[in-house]
Amino acid sequence: MPDLFDVMARRRSVRKYSPEEVREEDINAILEAACSAPSAGNLQAYEIVVVRDKGRRRSLAEASFGQMFMAEAPLHLVFLAYPARSSRVYGRRGAKLYSIQDATIAATFSMLAAHALGYGTCWVGAFDDERVLHIVGAPKDRIPVAIITVGKPRGREPTTSRLGMEEFVFKEVHGTPFPHKVSMKNLLRPRC
Amino acid sequence: MPDLFDVMARRRSVRKYSPEEVREEDINAILEAACSAPSAGNLQAYEIVVVRDKGRRRSLAEASFGQMFMAEAPLHLVFLAYPARSSRVYGRRGAKLYSIQDATIAATFSMLAAHALGYGTCWVGAFDDERVLHIVGAPKDRIPVAIITVGKPRGREPTTSRLGMEEFVFKEVHGTPFPHKVSMKNLLRPRC
Repeated sequence: MPDLFDVMARRRSVRKYSPEEVREEDINAILEAACSAPSAGNLQAYEIVVVRDKGRRRSLAEASFGQMFMAEAPLHLVFLAYPARSSRVYGRRGAKLYSIQDATIAATFSMLAAHALGYGTCWVGAFDDERVLHIVGAPKDRIPVAIITVGKPRGREPTTSRLGMEEFVFKEVHGTPFPHKVSMKNLLRPRC
Repeated sequence: MPDLFDVMARRRSVRKYSPEEVREEDINAILEAACSAPSAGNLQAYEIVVVRDKGRRRSLAEASFGQMFMAEAPLHLVFLAYPARSSRVYGRRGAKLYSIQDATIAATFSMLAAHALGYGTCWVGAFDDERVLHIVGAPKDRIPVAIITVGKPRGREPTTSRLGMEEFVFKEVHGTPFPHKVSMKNLLRPRC
């Protein structure tokens, strides 16, 4: 029973992986989590390419401007926005916003599911879009919006801090700080 | 201990709310969840406006092309992308992609946290951007990307289905279906 608040609070970006494979049933559960995410008009304007092939993972790492730690992770989930699927119903807003969000929300669900199952992930957003599409053989009208690397962490990852709540959470109107009191749910992060 | 997979599987978009307020400590926990979300370069290129004022909620519903169910929800969380915060480091990609994603991931964390605490939410993405910025008094360079309505559900919400996995999840290359086997983690959704 992985507690949601615990998973969120303990999640770190993992950039060192052991070579242990991600179990087939865990991949299934991670994909089902992605699939349960909400999307605009329930259109699911995204696609996922599941990459385990070593050479292809290496190519994705190179296409991500040489973030070679990625190649160490035994599983890559490549999330593609599918603008045309949303724009048929929602026009330009569907193409430019909703399809990006659909893919991003699904990626977020999969990331949390992976951590709940004992894996580590890293959200990679910096890559050459065209090269990524080419590596996974996707049509040119798709937009890669995230590569989630998944694997068992090797070693501990550093804790990162956050902005103080008063800097970005407002009450009723922008600029008025929300009077935040730290709750008992989430005390693992140092600054929020 | 809200189980992450259970929360994901049972979450529905809630459009009918009881008038019961969202407890202060629950708002804090929801905001902390948002704050724990990853962001590009840990820049947190987003802001959140917490809206409980009745008149302002009504205005937000009107600005969302008359989705008046929103006004019934006692709490609105308005997520604003802050492109300039990301573009300082990441240029155009920061402004156009990462800031939208930062806000979207944070909104996703807060949505899941609210459900884990027994509330219902609806992700609203259709609104007049300029009117929303005006209602919450935000600078014109921000981009509203989601309004998450939060409150205790009144009645049951319908189950929605999903695309079959073979339609959008691929193995290694686009077009090759991933051989998905339904796991035991997430059997509450009918079609994935």
